[in-house]
Amino acid sequence: MGLPAGVVDALKQIVGVDGVRLAPGELAAYARDATPLFHAEPDVVVFPRTTEQVAAVLRLATEHEVPVVPRGAGSNLCAATVPLSGGIVLALTRMTQILEVDGDELLARVQPGVTTARLADAAAARDLLYVPDPGSRTTSTVGGNVATCAGGLRGLKYGVTRNYVLGLEAVLPTGEVIRTGGRLWKDVAGYDLTRLLTGSEGTLAVLTEVTVALLPKPAEVGTGIAYFDSLADACRAVAAIISAGIVPATLEFLDQKCIAAVEDYAQLGLRGDAGALLLFGDDGPIEVVAGNLVRLRKICTEAGALEVTLAEDVARSDALLAARRCSLPALSRLGSLTILEDVTVPRPRLAAMVDQIDEIAARFGLLIATFGHAGDGNLHPTCVLDPEDDEAIDRAHKAFAEIFAAAIRFEGTITGEHGVGAAKLPFLADRLGADQMRLLRRIKTAFDPAGILNPGKVGS
Amino acid sequence: MGLPAGVVDALKQIVGVDGVRLAPGELAAYARDATPLFHAEPDVVVFPRTTEQVAAVLRLATEHEVPVVPRGAGSNLCAATVPLSGGIVLALTRMTQILEVDGDELLARVQPGVTTARLADAAAARDLLYVPDPGSRTTSTVGGNVATCAGGLRGLKYGVTRNYVLGLEAVLPTGEVIRTGGRLWKDVAGYDLTRLLTGSEGTLAVLTEVTVALLPKPAEVGTGIAYFDSLADACRAVAAIISAGIVPATLEFLDQKCIAAVEDYAQLGLRGDAGALLLFGDDGPIEVVAGNLVRLRKICTEAGALEVTLAEDVARSDALLAARRCSLPALSRLGSLTILEDVTVPRPRLAAMVDQIDEIAARFGLLIATFGHAGDGNLHPTCVLDPEDDEAIDRAHKAFAEIFAAAIRFEGTITGEHGVGAAKLPFLADRLGADQMRLLRRIKTAFDPAGILNPGKVGS
Repeated sequence: MGLPAGVVDALKQIVGVDGVRLAPGELAAYARDATPLFHAEPDVVVFPRTTEQVAAVLRLATEHEVPVVPRGAGSNLCAATVPLSGGIVLALTRMTQILEVDGDELLARVQPGVTTARLADAAAARDLLYVPDPGSRTTSTVGGNVATCAGGLRGLKYGVTRNYVLGLEAVLPTGEVIRTGGRLWKDVAGYDLTRLLTGSEGTLAVLTEVTVALLPKPAEVGTGIAYFDSLADACRAVAAIISAGIVPATLEFLDQKCIAAVEDYAQLGLRGDAGALLLFGDDGPIEVVAGNLVRLRKICTEAGALEVTLAEDVARSDALLAARRCSLPALSRLGSLTILEDVTVPRPRLAAMVDQIDEIAARFGLLIATFGHAGDGNLHPTCVLDPEDDEAIDRAHKAFAEIFAAAIRFEGTITGEHGVGAAKLPFLADRLGADQMRLLRRIKTAFDPAGILNPGKVGS
Repeated sequence: MGLPAGVVDALKQIVGVDGVRLAPGELAAYARDATPLFHAEPDVVVFPRTTEQVAAVLRLATEHEVPVVPRGAGSNLCAATVPLSGGIVLALTRMTQILEVDGDELLARVQPGVTTARLADAAAARDLLYVPDPGSRTTSTVGGNVATCAGGLRGLKYGVTRNYVLGLEAVLPTGEVIRTGGRLWKDVAGYDLTRLLTGSEGTLAVLTEVTVALLPKPAEVGTGIAYFDSLADACRAVAAIISAGIVPATLEFLDQKCIAAVEDYAQLGLRGDAGALLLFGDDGPIEVVAGNLVRLRKICTEAGALEVTLAEDVARSDALLAARRCSLPALSRLGSLTILEDVTVPRPRLAAMVDQIDEIAARFGLLIATFGHAGDGNLHPTCVLDPEDDEAIDRAHKAFAEIFAAAIRFEGTITGEHGVGAAKLPFLADRLGADQMRLLRRIKTAFDPAGILNPGKVGS
């Protein structure tokens, strides 16, 4: 497309020469995020250091109707930060200050470019817990986590990013700086823009500061592993756990294909003959965790588990959680193209949904392995492909379209924690209906009359 | 104002003759909610029984540009349901079905007119907990709770209504029916309209169905009471509790004036010589609650409490919680006009804020007693007046304007859990700023182009 004359010079005026990148290699680096098969080069990459610089860039962009795609680490899996219409990628990775971590108020205030792991470490250093723990947490930024409402392994017991965002500073596409919420657990003054911006994927405003709630660090964390003949058996155990009044911190599953891939990758001593693996765990006061783990073991055994083991120490507990976390890299080794999806269904429909996925995969002749969060019904069916095989990629797209339709039929959703981005936008109307899609567009226009922010994504 | 010709007949066509009320006595009953000093009569009160009827009424109202004020029990304290511009009061009190309570999915689905207490009882009957517990819960409706994002006594540990709303059915002012969220803990498909509608006070859409998350009922609940010389001492104890890594389910305070009023009203044996009372409590597994109560007692004692007692049984525990809950009726007996306010400040500013309130009350020659939620910094300064004394009422308004300004200075907010309504709208710009106020109006227009829904409230 090319930028209007004078825009690059004006950007250099705003952020300095070292904050503007135009070299072909650098533009190529910002043409992609972690989503396979989507790429589009921006015309320029801009690195602001202050809220005022962000506001000046946005005013300039609105004036010249230049698209702006805000970006953190680019670790999202829904092509949310691919600059489909070119223009400016606004990289917030130089806004990396942890402004405060306050143990008395149980909150932290950070700039958007701070990584999730750095925030979690800063909290842990004061015996506090930052709850959201997306798989990408060592590289993902807090701003990106808020923009996508990132989830993680603790959804059912603790909720997701939206449950921990207390306040935001955000810049509207027209350049106004607003502050929503703040340092308060109770605040109902005005519409809940804090939550509206959370998960809006950089289409409504650019986040320049985030205040999050922290929790006291649990005294104890415990983990166990159960093997089952089938995922249906594992899901019966999950139902029995909830019926017993236990809401565990961790309740993750791997199907047979994932178990095999993880064991091949990490040699953790996982059983190869099981149809499904359930990783369970809890955190809290020592006596509660110990008691709950014994109850969880008993329930899994009664539900027909082949074998149940409790991790004897923190090291083994960490190893088991690593098994779950390495599902994606382990599967990625099976082919050089990995499409990781993200549907959610009500918990009682989990086993039926996995059956559907397996049936669809077989029908389309694809390798689709599934792992995910059994506690909150969030599944990650993952298709492993040869990137040169266009015909197979086409089949994969058709298979996923059927998987999304099945999730919706089961009263589920097309994305539980990864986001809509460009990847899911074609399916969003199936989930929300035409009336709600029109409403989303009107809300988008209320924030962004010129339509410059992240065009081609939700609200477009 | 009067309605356009034919509107009443059309309403009778939609909801039936028995669902339309026009008698002067009935219009007078819907001219007020629980907020003193605000009243305005509607032209008609309409009682729909189905979502389709709600949609038909709204289409009619948009076509004729007739104001519509959705209303549950009218128990709000911010004049959110006073029909300032006349028109239609849409009373949802005939939509009272509990559609399901599901222990496997830990959720309930209800029509908006179900009272909070009825939902809580239906959950309790299956050993489940519906968390939000606003003071009005025996009369307030779930729809009203969602519309105002109602709080209660459990904010710090458990959050407020927004943390428990999973999905909504809502009718737009133009008649379209949308469904947001659903039965899922993780769902990021589209902007978070579930949370945007929560707390929107009937200005964006009319809620016709609500799906809420439930928790397993805690095995044990325990309560204790501590007396202090001053509220500053009580707040020091609160800070020490949080520093010790405890987030108790209950942490309520009464100032000296409240203690005296409650004791006079309910004869619970409260100490009259204390400057402040702190009610603390926790819930969860038996061993955890017992241990935490002992720790809480120790921390209060070390912070200089005059006396600390743990409730010996459930009956005494209930009596202590009743002491807190009856603060408002107890204060109401001191005068026939009671203005109950609702500011929140960061927890460490609580004592300073109460000092400010006392200073302002003294300067204006008013009786203002303060009680509230120490855990989440949410204060309810309550002014007791003679309704015939216009000059004193005027002084009270001036005093509260100063209290709101002080809360904002302390990085707090003008309403923690009661809402904006008509009562706080004049102060909202002080909290949000002019740019955010304009944004709220644009969002309002995106939902309600004709401006028929609850005019004169937030977004107007």
